[in-house]
Amino acid sequence: MLSLLNQHRTIRKYTDKQIEPNLLAQLLESACRASNTGNMQAYSIVVTTDPAIKDQLSPAHFNQPMLKTAPAVLTFCADYNRITRWCELRNAVPGFDNFQSFMAAAMDALIAAQTFCIAAESAGLGICYLGTTTYNAQEIIAALNLPKLVVPVTTITVGYPADIPDQTDRLPLASVVHQEAYKDFTAEDIDSLYAEKENSGFYKQFVAENKKETLAQVFTDIRYSKKNNEFFSVKFMDALKMQGFMK
Amino acid sequence: MLSLLNQHRTIRKYTDKQIEPNLLAQLLESACRASNTGNMQAYSIVVTTDPAIKDQLSPAHFNQPMLKTAPAVLTFCADYNRITRWCELRNAVPGFDNFQSFMAAAMDALIAAQTFCIAAESAGLGICYLGTTTYNAQEIIAALNLPKLVVPVTTITVGYPADIPDQTDRLPLASVVHQEAYKDFTAEDIDSLYAEKENSGFYKQFVAENKKETLAQVFTDIRYSKKNNEFFSVKFMDALKMQGFMK
Repeated sequence: MLSLLNQHRTIRKYTDKQIEPNLLAQLLESACRASNTGNMQAYSIVVTTDPAIKDQLSPAHFNQPMLKTAPAVLTFCADYNRITRWCELRNAVPGFDNFQSFMAAAMDALIAAQTFCIAAESAGLGICYLGTTTYNAQEIIAALNLPKLVVPVTTITVGYPADIPDQTDRLPLASVVHQEAYKDFTAEDIDSLYAEKENSGFYKQFVAENKKETLAQVFTDIRYSKKNNEFFSVKFMDALKMQGFMK
Repeated sequence: MLSLLNQHRTIRKYTDKQIEPNLLAQLLESACRASNTGNMQAYSIVVTTDPAIKDQLSPAHFNQPMLKTAPAVLTFCADYNRITRWCELRNAVPGFDNFQSFMAAAMDALIAAQTFCIAAESAGLGICYLGTTTYNAQEIIAALNLPKLVVPVTTITVGYPADIPDQTDRLPLASVVHQEAYKDFTAEDIDSLYAEKENSGFYKQFVAENKKETLAQVFTDIRYSKKNNEFFSVKFMDALKMQGFMK
């Protein structure tokens, strides 16, 4: 089991083989066994295989090719719509149109998503998370007809791997694990924790290709710039307001 | 593997047996192999075993007993502090003090958390998620000395199960899975999807014990009231501002 988790790679290229509907249903059932808030299951999973609907989703994901080449695209949503409708039909006054409820529902969606990914990998499938989901939530809401109190939080493309790429690196465990309480980092700590990453041939080439001085600059100037982060912050907050979660 | 996921139960009672440090490190290593945003690993995991620090955390989790009886308490945090420090030391201008970066980091933390849970369960351990983390983030920040750009998003108590409780129910898959695009629910859909839950002896007793007319009312009037959700929405947004994520 740990060896399965330790073999994880993001898979962006898929064979033509389709996923058997029975298998997909089994994986989804396993995903739904995961922990969730008060057993309300405040999430939904939209499974898209139709090329026409994938075409509508594609620009929201900046036309990343996985969206069209994967046999299935799963959009995981924070969802208090179903629960709110249930409450309204049961003489109960729902109060889920707020940020705390969005956070709880987003957590439910993400825990289900990662459980799905591990289930899928155990069945020989490969997955790729699309971080573009919170960049362009409004466009995804339009493409998938998401009603009020439903907001997409992540998207997974899934299919049979066409090849198995090299594994990406991870920082030493001490970079992310703190014992008892948080211990902040000195400059020497940072140098030591990032040394292996920064000295690897792979990242040296990556920095050169991006015409930057340091690896950190690739992240701040190109991949996750302050300007873009701020633009997409406003846009995602607008999506939460539009869907009724910020009352 | 699916059978492991399908056997999931929340474990709230633990034996006295401690978790071997080597095993815990292995489980954390496996958790860190999971997907994350741009391979920046924008999360941290605070592992608390010291009774004195658990005592400080306890009120933030409304003194739920698992916090003290579990051998280990893991607080999973959205963390752009380490990355920001790295950027500042590498002549790169970081721009992660915004809501989009918080969301990306919170997703990293949750994906790592659920991967840890599945790894732990595969090793015979039991876990419990504490949803109180986003209710009382400020108190957790104080107890664990979390610096700016670090916000706790979920907490897991972990240990060897003292007993194996009955599994909780789940709604039929059609409640959460939508084919191709979202299909909203009619009143008949809701009646059908909630029938088994509402007719179960377990929930009928639960409604009676809570002196309510319907199961939905237990959720809206007692467990997740509008008033509480709104109070904790403001409080969590204040924590995001305090930690520098809402610029």
